[in-house]
Amino acid sequence: MSDTHRIFPQSDFQVQELPTDGKLFFPDRKQAEMEFKNGRKELAEFQRRLYAEGKQKLLIVFQAMDAGGKDGTIRKVFSGVNPQGVVVNSFKVPSKEELAHDFLWRIHKKAPSKGMIGVFNRSHYEDVLVVRVHDIVPESVWRPRYEQINQFEKLLHDTGTRVLKFFLHISKDEQKERFQDRLDVPEKNWKFSVDDLRKRTYWDDYMSAYQEMMEQCSTEYAPWYAIPANQKWYRNWAIMNVILSTLREMDPQYPPPEDDIEGIVVE
Amino acid sequence: MSDTHRIFPQSDFQVQELPTDGKLFFPDRKQAEMEFKNGRKELAEFQRRLYAEGKQKLLIVFQAMDAGGKDGTIRKVFSGVNPQGVVVNSFKVPSKEELAHDFLWRIHKKAPSKGMIGVFNRSHYEDVLVVRVHDIVPESVWRPRYEQINQFEKLLHDTGTRVLKFFLHISKDEQKERFQDRLDVPEKNWKFSVDDLRKRTYWDDYMSAYQEMMEQCSTEYAPWYAIPANQKWYRNWAIMNVILSTLREMDPQYPPPEDDIEGIVVE
Repeated sequence: MSDTHRIFPQSDFQVQELPTDGKLFFPDRKQAEMEFKNGRKELAEFQRRLYAEGKQKLLIVFQAMDAGGKDGTIRKVFSGVNPQGVVVNSFKVPSKEELAHDFLWRIHKKAPSKGMIGVFNRSHYEDVLVVRVHDIVPESVWRPRYEQINQFEKLLHDTGTRVLKFFLHISKDEQKERFQDRLDVPEKNWKFSVDDLRKRTYWDDYMSAYQEMMEQCSTEYAPWYAIPANQKWYRNWAIMNVILSTLREMDPQYPPPEDDIEGIVVE
Repeated sequence: MSDTHRIFPQSDFQVQELPTDGKLFFPDRKQAEMEFKNGRKELAEFQRRLYAEGKQKLLIVFQAMDAGGKDGTIRKVFSGVNPQGVVVNSFKVPSKEELAHDFLWRIHKKAPSKGMIGVFNRSHYEDVLVVRVHDIVPESVWRPRYEQINQFEKLLHDTGTRVLKFFLHISKDEQKERFQDRLDVPEKNWKFSVDDLRKRTYWDDYMSAYQEMMEQCSTEYAPWYAIPANQKWYRNWAIMNVILSTLREMDPQYPPPEDDIEGIVVE
Protein backbone atom coordinates (compact mmCIF):
# COMPACT_ATOMS: atom_id res chain seq x y z
CA MET A 1 0.00 0.00 0.00
CA SER A 2 2.87 2.35 0.78
CA ASP A 3 4.20 1.71 -2.75
CA THR A 4 1.03 2.85 -4.54
CA HIS A 5 2.55 6.15 -5.62
CA ARG A 6 6.17 5.10 -5.87
CA ILE A 7 7.94 5.78 -9.16
CA PHE A 8 9.99 2.69 -9.92
CA PRO A 9 13.12 2.94 -12.06
CA GLN A 10 12.40 2.49 -15.78
CA SER A 11 8.66 2.71 -15.18
CA ASP A 12 6.57 4.25 -17.92
CA PHE A 13 4.51 7.25 -16.79
CA GLN A 14 3.40 10.70 -17.85
CA VAL A 15 3.42 13.17 -14.99
CA GLN A 16 0.43 15.00 -16.52
CA GLU A 17 -1.51 11.74 -16.24
CA LEU A 18 -0.47 10.87 -12.70
CA PRO A 19 -3.44 11.36 -10.36
CA THR A 20 -3.80 14.52 -8.33
CA ASP A 21 -7.05 13.33 -6.78
CA GLY A 22 -6.58 11.15 -3.70
CA LYS A 23 -10.25 10.26 -3.41
CA LEU A 24 -9.67 7.70 -6.16
CA PHE A 25 -7.48 5.73 -3.78
CA PHE A 26 -9.16 6.22 -0.44
CA PRO A 27 -12.72 7.50 -0.49
CA ASP A 28 -13.27 7.67 3.28
CA ARG A 29 -11.91 10.95 4.62
CA LYS A 30 -12.94 10.29 8.24
CA GLN A 31 -11.15 6.96 8.24
CA ALA A 32 -8.02 8.49 6.67
CA GLU A 33 -7.96 11.25 9.27
CA MET A 34 -8.28 8.77 12.11
CA GLU A 35 -5.51 6.60 10.73
CA PHE A 36 -3.34 9.69 10.23
CA LYS A 37 -3.84 10.72 13.84
CA ASN A 38 -2.74 7.29 15.06
CA GLY A 39 0.14 7.47 12.62
CA ARG A 40 1.42 10.63 14.28
CA LYS A 41 1.68 8.77 17.58
CA GLU A 42 3.53 5.91 15.92
CA LEU A 43 5.88 8.38 14.23
CA ALA A 44 6.60 10.08 17.57
CA GLU A 45 7.52 6.71 19.11
CA PHE A 46 9.72 5.75 16.14
CA GLN A 47 11.51 9.08 16.41
CA ARG A 48 12.28 8.44 20.08
CA ARG A 49 13.80 5.09 19.23
CA LEU A 50 15.74 6.43 16.26
CA TYR A 51 17.19 9.20 18.43
CA ALA A 52 17.98 6.87 21.32
CA GLU A 53 19.61 4.34 19.00
CA GLY A 54 21.74 7.07 17.44
CA LYS A 55 22.86 5.10 14.40
CA GLN A 56 20.53 5.52 11.43
CA LYS A 57 19.39 8.69 9.68
CA LEU A 58 16.27 9.51 7.69
CA LEU A 59 16.07 12.23 5.03
CA ILE A 60 12.69 13.31 3.67
CA VAL A 61 12.55 15.64 0.67
CA PHE A 62 9.47 17.63 -0.39
CA GLN A 63 9.04 19.27 -3.76
CA ALA A 64 5.92 20.79 -5.29
CA MET A 65 4.58 23.58 -7.42
CA ASP A 66 3.78 26.80 -5.53
CA ALA A 67 0.85 26.24 -3.16
CA GLY A 68 1.39 22.51 -3.56
CA GLY A 69 1.34 22.06 0.21
CA LYS A 70 4.96 21.65 1.30
CA ASP A 71 4.63 23.81 4.40
CA GLY A 72 1.28 22.37 5.36
CA THR A 73 2.50 18.80 4.96
CA ILE A 74 5.53 19.40 7.14
CA ARG A 75 3.41 21.03 9.81
CA LYS A 76 0.78 18.29 9.77
CA VAL A 77 3.07 15.28 9.57
CA PHE A 78 5.79 16.41 11.98
CA SER A 79 3.92 18.43 14.60
CA GLY A 80 3.70 15.96 17.42
CA VAL A 81 7.24 14.72 16.97
CA ASN A 82 9.89 15.93 19.39
CA PRO A 83 11.57 18.83 17.54
CA GLN A 84 14.86 17.81 19.16
CA GLY A 85 15.01 14.91 16.71
CA VAL A 86 13.72 16.63 13.57
CA VAL A 87 15.54 19.32 11.62
CA VAL A 88 13.62 21.08 8.86
CA ASN A 89 15.64 22.98 6.26
CA SER A 90 14.03 25.31 3.75
CA PHE A 91 16.19 25.95 0.73
CA LYS A 92 15.53 29.36 -0.79
CA VAL A 93 17.32 31.25 -3.57
CA PRO A 94 21.02 30.47 -2.97
CA SER A 95 23.24 33.12 -1.38
CA LYS A 96 26.36 34.47 -3.06
CA GLU A 97 28.51 32.18 -0.95
CA GLU A 98 26.38 29.15 -1.85
CA LEU A 99 26.54 29.98 -5.55
CA ALA A 100 30.31 30.17 -5.30
CA HIS A 101 30.26 26.42 -4.52
CA ASP A 102 28.79 23.44 -6.37
CA PHE A 103 25.00 23.07 -6.07
CA LEU A 104 25.23 20.18 -3.60
CA TRP A 105 27.53 21.98 -1.15
CA ARG A 106 24.79 23.72 0.83
CA ILE A 107 22.66 20.57 0.71
CA HIS A 108 25.37 18.27 2.03
CA LYS A 109 25.95 20.55 5.01
CA LYS A 110 22.33 19.99 6.05
CA ALA A 111 22.22 16.19 5.69
CA PRO A 112 20.83 14.68 8.89
CA SER A 113 23.22 13.31 11.51
CA LYS A 114 22.89 9.98 13.35
CA GLY A 115 19.56 9.46 15.06
CA MET A 116 17.96 12.42 13.30
CA ILE A 117 15.13 12.96 10.84
CA GLY A 118 16.06 15.62 8.29
CA VAL A 119 13.29 17.31 6.32
CA PHE A 120 14.00 19.35 3.20
CA ASN A 121 11.42 21.94 2.17
CA ARG A 122 12.65 22.29 -1.43
CA SER A 123 16.09 20.85 -2.06
CA HIS A 124 18.85 20.22 -4.60
CA TYR A 125 16.03 19.35 -7.01
CA GLU A 126 15.37 23.06 -7.48
CA ASP A 127 18.59 22.98 -9.49
CA VAL A 128 16.89 20.83 -12.13
CA LEU A 129 13.46 22.50 -11.79
CA VAL A 130 13.27 26.29 -11.46
CA VAL A 131 16.85 26.55 -12.74
CA ARG A 132 15.98 24.52 -15.84
CA VAL A 133 12.61 26.07 -16.59
CA HIS A 134 13.87 29.64 -16.38
CA ASP A 135 17.21 28.99 -18.09
CA ILE A 136 19.20 30.16 -15.09
CA VAL A 137 22.07 27.94 -16.23
CA PRO A 138 22.55 26.30 -19.66
CA GLU A 139 21.51 22.68 -20.28
CA SER A 140 25.17 21.66 -20.39
CA VAL A 141 25.24 22.54 -16.70
CA TRP A 142 21.89 21.27 -15.43
CA ARG A 143 21.74 18.01 -17.41
CA PRO A 144 24.74 16.39 -15.69
CA ARG A 145 23.10 17.18 -12.35
CA TYR A 146 20.75 14.18 -12.53
CA GLU A 147 23.71 11.86 -12.35
CA GLN A 148 25.47 14.03 -9.79
CA ILE A 149 22.36 13.90 -7.62
CA ASN A 150 22.13 10.12 -7.94
CA GLN A 151 25.74 9.72 -6.88
CA PHE A 152 25.25 12.08 -3.96
CA GLU A 153 22.13 10.29 -2.75
CA LYS A 154 23.91 6.94 -3.13
CA LEU A 155 26.64 8.22 -0.84
CA LEU A 156 24.03 9.20 1.74
CA HIS A 157 22.31 5.84 1.41
CA ASP A 158 25.51 3.81 1.61
CA THR A 159 26.58 5.66 4.73
CA GLY A 160 23.42 5.02 6.72
CA THR A 161 20.76 7.47 5.52
CA ARG A 162 17.37 6.36 4.22
CA VAL A 163 16.18 8.84 1.60
CA LEU A 164 12.50 9.43 0.74
CA LYS A 165 11.36 12.01 -1.82
CA PHE A 166 7.82 13.28 -2.20
CA PHE A 167 6.45 15.23 -5.13
CA LEU A 168 3.16 16.77 -3.96
CA HIS A 169 1.16 16.65 -7.14
CA ILE A 170 -1.72 19.13 -7.47
CA SER A 171 -3.74 20.00 -10.56
CA LYS A 172 -3.48 23.37 -12.25
CA ASP A 173 -7.06 24.10 -11.18
CA GLU A 174 -6.26 23.29 -7.58
CA GLN A 175 -3.34 25.72 -7.67
CA LYS A 176 -5.69 28.38 -9.01
CA GLU A 177 -8.07 27.85 -6.09
CA ARG A 178 -5.29 27.96 -3.54
CA PHE A 179 -3.83 31.17 -4.99
CA GLN A 180 -7.29 32.73 -4.97
CA ASP A 181 -7.69 31.65 -1.36
CA ARG A 182 -4.41 33.37 -0.44
CA LEU A 183 -5.70 36.52 -2.08
CA ASP A 184 -9.09 36.35 -0.40
CA VAL A 185 -8.17 35.42 3.18
CA PRO A 186 -6.32 38.29 4.92
CA GLU A 187 -4.32 35.94 7.18
CA LYS A 188 -3.00 34.17 4.08
CA ASN A 189 -2.16 37.28 2.03
CA TRP A 190 1.46 37.20 3.15
CA LYS A 191 1.95 33.87 1.40
CA PHE A 192 1.09 35.34 -1.97
CA SER A 193 3.54 36.95 -4.35
CA VAL A 194 2.90 38.22 -7.86
CA ASP A 195 5.89 36.19 -9.02
CA ASP A 196 3.86 33.03 -8.27
CA LEU A 197 1.51 34.01 -11.12
CA ARG A 198 4.42 34.43 -13.51
CA LYS A 199 5.69 30.95 -12.62
CA ARG A 200 2.18 29.58 -13.11
CA THR A 201 2.37 30.48 -16.80
CA TYR A 202 5.25 27.99 -17.08
CA TRP A 203 3.11 25.10 -15.76
CA ASP A 204 3.78 22.74 -18.67
CA ASP A 205 7.51 23.41 -18.63
CA TYR A 206 7.56 22.64 -14.93
CA MET A 207 5.68 19.38 -15.53
CA SER A 208 8.32 18.36 -18.09
CA ALA A 209 11.02 19.12 -15.58
CA TYR A 210 9.26 17.08 -12.87
CA GLN A 211 8.82 14.26 -15.37
CA GLU A 212 12.49 14.04 -16.15
CA MET A 213 13.51 14.57 -12.53
CA MET A 214 11.54 11.49 -11.49
CA GLU A 215 12.60 9.45 -14.53
CA GLN A 216 16.25 10.15 -13.88
CA CYS A 217 16.40 10.24 -10.10
CA SER A 218 13.88 7.76 -8.73
CA THR A 219 16.31 5.06 -7.73
CA GLU A 220 16.10 1.90 -5.65
CA TYR A 221 18.03 3.62 -2.88
CA ALA A 222 16.25 7.00 -3.04
CA PRO A 223 12.74 6.65 -4.48
CA TRP A 224 10.39 9.39 -5.58
CA TYR A 225 6.72 9.21 -4.65
CA ALA A 226 4.22 11.26 -6.69
CA ILE A 227 1.50 11.90 -4.11
CA PRO A 228 -1.97 13.00 -5.24
CA ALA A 229 -2.20 16.23 -3.26
CA ASN A 230 -5.44 17.97 -4.19
CA GLN A 231 -6.98 16.66 -0.95
CA LYS A 232 -4.79 17.52 2.00
CA TRP A 233 -6.19 14.71 4.15
CA TYR A 234 -5.26 12.11 1.54
CA ARG A 235 -1.84 13.63 0.93
CA ASN A 236 -1.04 13.55 4.67
CA TRP A 237 -2.31 10.01 5.06
CA ALA A 238 -0.38 8.68 2.06
CA ILE A 239 2.89 10.34 3.11
CA MET A 240 2.54 9.14 6.67
CA ASN A 241 2.11 5.59 5.39
CA VAL A 242 5.31 5.70 3.38
CA ILE A 243 7.30 7.18 6.26
CA LEU A 244 5.97 4.67 8.79
CA SER A 245 6.55 1.73 6.51
CA THR A 246 10.15 2.90 6.00
CA LEU A 247 10.67 3.30 9.73
CA ARG A 248 9.29 -0.18 10.33
CA GLU A 249 11.99 -1.49 8.00
CA MET A 250 14.66 0.59 9.72
CA ASP A 251 13.42 -0.85 13.02
CA PRO A 252 15.35 1.41 15.42
CA GLN A 253 15.93 0.00 18.92
CA TYR A 254 16.66 1.47 22.31
CA PRO A 255 20.36 0.76 22.77
CA PRO A 256 21.95 -1.02 25.73
CA PRO A 257 23.56 1.21 28.38
CA GLU A 258 27.08 2.46 27.69
CA ASP A 259 28.41 1.10 30.93
CA ASP A 260 27.92 -2.09 32.91
CA ILE A 261 25.05 -1.05 35.19
CA GLU A 262 24.47 -4.43 36.82
CA GLY A 263 23.89 -4.01 40.52
CA ILE A 264 24.48 -0.25 40.69
CA VAL A 265 22.60 1.47 43.51
CA VAL A 266 22.38 5.25 43.52
CA GLU A 267 23.47 6.86 46.82
CA MET B 1 2.20 34.89 37.67
CA SER B 2 4.77 34.24 34.99
CA ASP B 3 7.30 36.13 37.15
CA THR B 4 6.90 33.87 40.20
CA HIS B 5 10.21 32.11 39.59
CA ARG B 6 12.09 34.91 37.90
CA ILE B 7 15.44 35.86 39.37
CA PHE B 8 15.57 39.63 39.39
CA PRO B 9 18.93 41.44 39.23
CA GLN B 10 20.38 42.09 42.68
CA SER B 11 17.77 39.89 44.31
CA ASP B 12 18.82 38.02 47.41
CA PHE B 13 18.43 34.25 47.16
CA GLN B 14 20.13 30.99 48.02
CA VAL B 15 19.79 28.40 45.28
CA GLN B 16 19.70 25.62 47.90
CA GLU B 17 16.62 27.28 49.38
CA LEU B 18 14.80 27.90 46.12
CA PRO B 19 11.83 25.54 45.88
CA THR B 20 12.08 22.32 43.88
CA ASP B 21 8.51 21.34 44.72
CA GLY B 22 5.90 22.82 42.38
CA LYS B 23 2.94 21.63 44.43
CA LEU B 24 3.57 24.58 46.75
CA PHE B 25 2.58 26.92 43.94
CA PHE B 26 -0.15 25.03 42.16
CA PRO B 27 -1.72 22.13 44.02
CA ASP B 28 -4.15 21.01 41.29
CA ARG B 29 -2.37 18.72 38.85
CA LYS B 30 -5.43 18.06 36.69
CA GLN B 31 -6.02 21.77 36.25
CA ALA B 32 -2.36 22.42 35.41
CA GLU B 33 -2.38 19.66 32.80
CA MET B 34 -5.50 21.05 31.17
CA GLU B 35 -4.07 24.55 31.06
CA PHE B 36 -0.82 23.18 29.66
CA LYS B 37 -2.66 21.39 26.89
CA ASN B 38 -4.44 24.59 25.90
CA GLY B 39 -1.12 26.39 26.16
CA ARG B 40 0.37 24.12 23.53
CA LYS B 41 -2.32 25.20 21.09
CA GLU B 42 -1.69 28.84 21.87
CA LEU B 43 2.05 28.31 21.41
CA ALA B 44 1.48 26.65 18.03
CA GLU B 45 -0.55 29.65 16.88
CA PHE B 46 2.04 32.15 18.17
CA GLN B 47 4.74 30.24 16.31
CA ARG B 48 2.80 30.51 13.06
CA ARG B 49 2.50 34.26 13.46
CA LEU B 50 6.12 34.68 14.50
CA TYR B 51 7.25 32.74 11.42
CA ALA B 52 4.88 34.56 9.08
CA GLU B 53 5.93 37.94 10.45
CA GLY B 54 9.60 37.03 9.99
CA LYS B 55 11.02 39.82 12.13
CA GLN B 56 11.45 38.80 15.76
CA LYS B 57 13.39 35.89 17.24
CA LEU B 58 12.99 33.96 20.48
CA LEU B 59 15.79 32.07 22.21
CA ILE B 60 15.00 29.66 25.05
CA VAL B 61 17.84 28.19 27.10
CA PHE B 62 17.54 25.13 29.34
CA GLN B 63 20.07 24.16 31.99
CA ALA B 64 19.73 21.56 34.73
CA MET B 65 21.56 18.91 36.70
CA ASP B 66 21.63 15.46 35.05
CA ALA B 67 18.13 13.97 34.94
CA GLY B 68 16.77 17.45 35.62
CA GLY B 69 14.35 17.09 32.73
CA LYS B 70 15.79 19.14 29.87
CA ASP B 71 14.92 16.59 27.17
CA GLY B 72 11.49 15.87 28.59
CA THR B 73 10.66 19.56 28.87
CA ILE B 74 11.64 20.25 25.28
CA ARG B 75 9.60 17.29 24.07
CA LYS B 76 6.53 18.21 26.09
CA VAL B 77 6.54 21.95 25.49
CA PHE B 78 7.47 21.97 21.80
CA SER B 79 5.83 18.85 20.42
CA GLY B 80 2.79 20.26 18.73
CA VAL B 81 4.65 23.22 17.28
CA ASN B 82 5.57 23.14 13.60
CA PRO B 83 9.20 21.95 13.58
CA GLN B 84 9.83 24.20 10.59
CA GLY B 85 9.81 27.14 13.01
CA VAL B 86 11.68 25.61 15.94
CA VAL B 87 15.36 24.68 15.96
CA VAL B 88 16.65 22.71 18.93
CA ASN B 89 20.40 22.65 19.51
CA SER B 90 22.03 20.34 22.02
CA PHE B 91 25.47 21.48 23.07
CA LYS B 92 27.68 18.56 24.06
CA VAL B 93 31.39 18.42 24.88
CA PRO B 94 32.98 20.88 22.43
CA SER B 95 34.84 19.54 19.39
CA LYS B 96 38.49 20.33 18.71
CA GLU B 97 37.45 22.97 16.20
CA GLU B 98 35.04 24.55 18.68
CA LEU B 99 37.69 24.62 21.40
CA ALA B 100 40.04 26.38 19.00
CA HIS B 101 37.63 29.34 19.09
CA ASP B 102 36.20 31.39 21.94
CA PHE B 103 33.45 29.68 23.95
CA LEU B 104 30.67 31.77 22.39
CA TRP B 105 31.65 31.00 18.78
CA ARG B 106 29.67 27.78 18.46
CA ILE B 107 26.76 29.32 20.34
CA HIS B 108 26.53 32.42 18.16
CA LYS B 109 26.36 30.26 15.02
CA LYS B 110 23.19 28.65 16.38
CA ALA B 111 21.37 31.82 17.42
CA PRO B 112 17.86 31.78 15.94
CA SER B 113 17.15 33.69 12.74
CA LYS B 114 14.17 35.96 12.06
CA GLY B 115 10.81 34.35 12.71
CA MET B 116 12.34 31.38 14.49
CA ILE B 117 12.25 29.91 17.98
CA GLY B 118 15.68 28.63 18.99
CA VAL B 119 15.93 26.15 21.85
CA PHE B 120 19.24 25.40 23.57
CA ASN B 121 19.54 22.08 25.39
CA ARG B 122 22.56 23.10 27.49
CA SER B 123 24.36 26.20 26.28
CA HIS B 124 27.22 28.61 26.86
CA TYR B 125 26.38 28.31 30.55
CA GLU B 126 28.15 24.96 30.63
CA ASP B 127 31.30 27.07 30.39
CA VAL B 128 30.62 28.48 33.86
CA LEU B 129 29.13 25.24 35.26
CA VAL B 130 30.80 21.92 34.41
CA VAL B 131 33.92 23.80 33.34
CA ARG B 132 34.10 25.62 36.66
CA VAL B 133 33.20 22.71 38.93
CA HIS B 134 35.73 20.33 37.38
CA ASP B 135 38.50 22.92 36.95
CA ILE B 136 38.65 22.44 33.19
CA VAL B 137 39.95 25.98 32.86
CA PRO B 138 41.36 28.23 35.62
CA GLU B 139 39.20 30.82 37.39
CA SER B 140 41.04 33.60 35.55
CA VAL B 141 39.41 32.22 32.40
CA TRP B 142 35.91 31.34 33.58
CA ARG B 143 35.27 34.34 35.81
CA PRO B 144 35.33 36.91 33.00
CA ARG B 145 32.78 34.78 31.15
CA TYR B 146 29.84 36.11 33.19
CA GLU B 147 30.42 39.55 31.80
CA GLN B 148 31.19 38.17 28.31
CA ILE B 149 27.90 36.26 28.38
CA ASN B 150 25.99 39.35 29.47
CA GLN B 151 27.47 41.37 26.62
CA PHE B 152 26.68 38.61 24.13
CA GLU B 153 23.09 38.26 25.29
CA LYS B 154 22.71 42.04 25.19
CA LEU B 155 23.77 41.97 21.54
CA LEU B 156 21.15 39.32 20.81
CA HIS B 157 18.51 41.31 22.68
CA ASP B 158 19.36 44.63 21.06
CA THR B 159 19.20 43.06 17.61
CA GLY B 160 15.73 41.59 17.96
CA THR B 161 16.00 38.38 20.00
CA ARG B 162 14.03 37.80 23.19
CA VAL B 163 16.08 35.59 25.51
CA LEU B 164 14.55 33.34 28.22
CA LYS B 165 16.64 31.07 30.42
CA PHE B 166 15.28 28.25 32.53
CA PHE B 167 17.10 26.44 35.31
CA LEU B 168 15.14 23.24 35.98
CA HIS B 169 15.64 22.89 39.70
CA ILE B 170 15.29 19.38 41.15
CA SER B 171 16.24 18.17 44.63
CA LYS B 172 19.13 15.81 45.21
CA ASP B 173 16.63 13.13 46.28
CA GLU B 174 14.65 13.56 43.09
CA GLN B 175 17.81 13.06 41.04
CA LYS B 176 18.47 9.86 42.96
CA GLU B 177 15.02 8.54 42.11
CA ARG B 178 15.38 9.43 38.46
CA PHE B 179 18.78 7.78 38.18
CA GLN B 180 17.41 4.67 39.87
CA ASP B 181 14.51 4.70 37.40
CA ARG B 182 16.96 4.81 34.50
CA LEU B 183 18.71 1.80 35.96
CA ASP B 184 15.50 -0.14 36.60
CA VAL B 185 13.55 0.47 33.38
CA PRO B 186 15.21 -1.30 30.40
CA GLU B 187 13.98 1.29 27.88
CA LYS B 188 15.66 4.01 29.91
CA ASN B 189 18.98 2.23 30.51
CA TRP B 190 20.59 3.97 27.55
CA LYS B 191 20.19 7.34 29.28
CA PHE B 192 22.33 6.26 32.21
CA SER B 193 26.07 6.66 32.39
CA VAL B 194 28.34 5.91 35.32
CA ASP B 195 29.85 9.36 34.89
CA ASP B 196 26.51 10.81 36.04
CA LEU B 197 27.16 9.29 39.48
CA ARG B 198 30.57 10.90 39.65
CA LYS B 199 29.07 14.30 38.83
CA ARG B 200 26.42 13.72 41.50
CA THR B 201 29.12 13.75 44.18
CA TYR B 202 29.82 17.37 43.20
CA TRP B 203 26.21 18.43 43.90
CA ASP B 204 27.08 21.28 46.27
CA ASP B 205 29.76 22.65 43.97
CA TYR B 206 27.26 22.65 41.12
CA MET B 207 24.74 24.50 43.26
CA SER B 208 27.34 27.18 44.01
CA ALA B 209 28.01 27.49 40.30
CA TYR B 210 24.28 27.78 39.50
CA GLN B 211 23.97 30.35 42.29
CA GLU B 212 26.64 32.59 40.84
CA MET B 213 25.48 32.03 37.27
CA MET B 214 22.03 33.37 38.13
CA GLU B 215 23.39 36.18 40.31
CA GLN B 216 25.70 37.37 37.58
CA CYS B 217 23.65 36.69 34.47
CA SER B 218 19.99 37.19 35.26
CA THR B 219 19.57 40.54 33.56
CA GLU B 220 16.61 42.69 32.60
CA TYR B 221 17.12 41.72 28.96
CA ALA B 222 17.84 37.99 29.48
CA PRO B 223 16.26 36.76 32.72
CA TRP B 224 16.83 33.45 34.46
CA TYR B 225 13.87 31.51 35.85
CA ALA B 226 14.52 28.89 38.54
CA ILE B 227 11.67 26.48 37.93
CA PRO B 228 10.68 23.96 40.64
CA ALA B 229 11.07 20.79 38.60
CA ASN B 230 10.46 17.81 40.89
CA GLN B 231 6.94 17.49 39.43
CA LYS B 232 7.06 17.40 35.66
CA TRP B 233 3.50 18.63 35.27
CA TYR B 234 4.24 21.74 37.29
CA ARG B 235 7.53 22.37 35.52
CA ASN B 236 5.86 22.17 32.10
CA TRP B 237 2.99 24.39 33.15
CA ALA B 238 5.25 27.05 34.68
CA ILE B 239 7.57 27.17 31.68
CA MET B 240 4.68 27.34 29.23
CA ASN B 241 3.30 30.30 31.16
CA VAL B 242 6.54 32.25 30.90
CA ILE B 243 6.91 31.51 27.19
CA LEU B 244 3.32 32.46 26.38
CA SER B 245 3.46 35.62 28.40
CA THR B 246 6.65 36.61 26.53
CA LEU B 247 5.04 35.86 23.18
CA ARG B 248 2.03 37.94 24.14
CA GLU B 249 4.38 40.86 24.69
CA MET B 250 6.18 40.18 21.40
CA ASP B 251 2.74 40.16 19.74
CA PRO B 252 3.76 38.83 16.30
CA GLN B 253 1.39 39.67 13.44
CA TYR B 254 0.67 38.20 10.04
CA PRO B 255 2.39 40.64 7.67
CA PRO B 256 0.78 42.42 4.74
CA PRO B 257 1.44 40.90 1.30
CA GLU B 258 4.72 41.80 -0.40
CA ASP B 259 2.98 43.07 -3.50
CA ASP B 260 -0.12 45.11 -4.21
CA ILE B 261 -2.70 42.35 -4.58
CA GLU B 262 -5.77 44.57 -4.92
CA GLY B 263 -8.05 43.24 -7.64
CA ILE B 264 -5.82 40.37 -8.79
CA VAL B 265 -7.74 37.45 -10.29
CA VAL B 266 -5.92 34.15 -10.86
CA GLU B 267 -6.27 32.80 -14.40
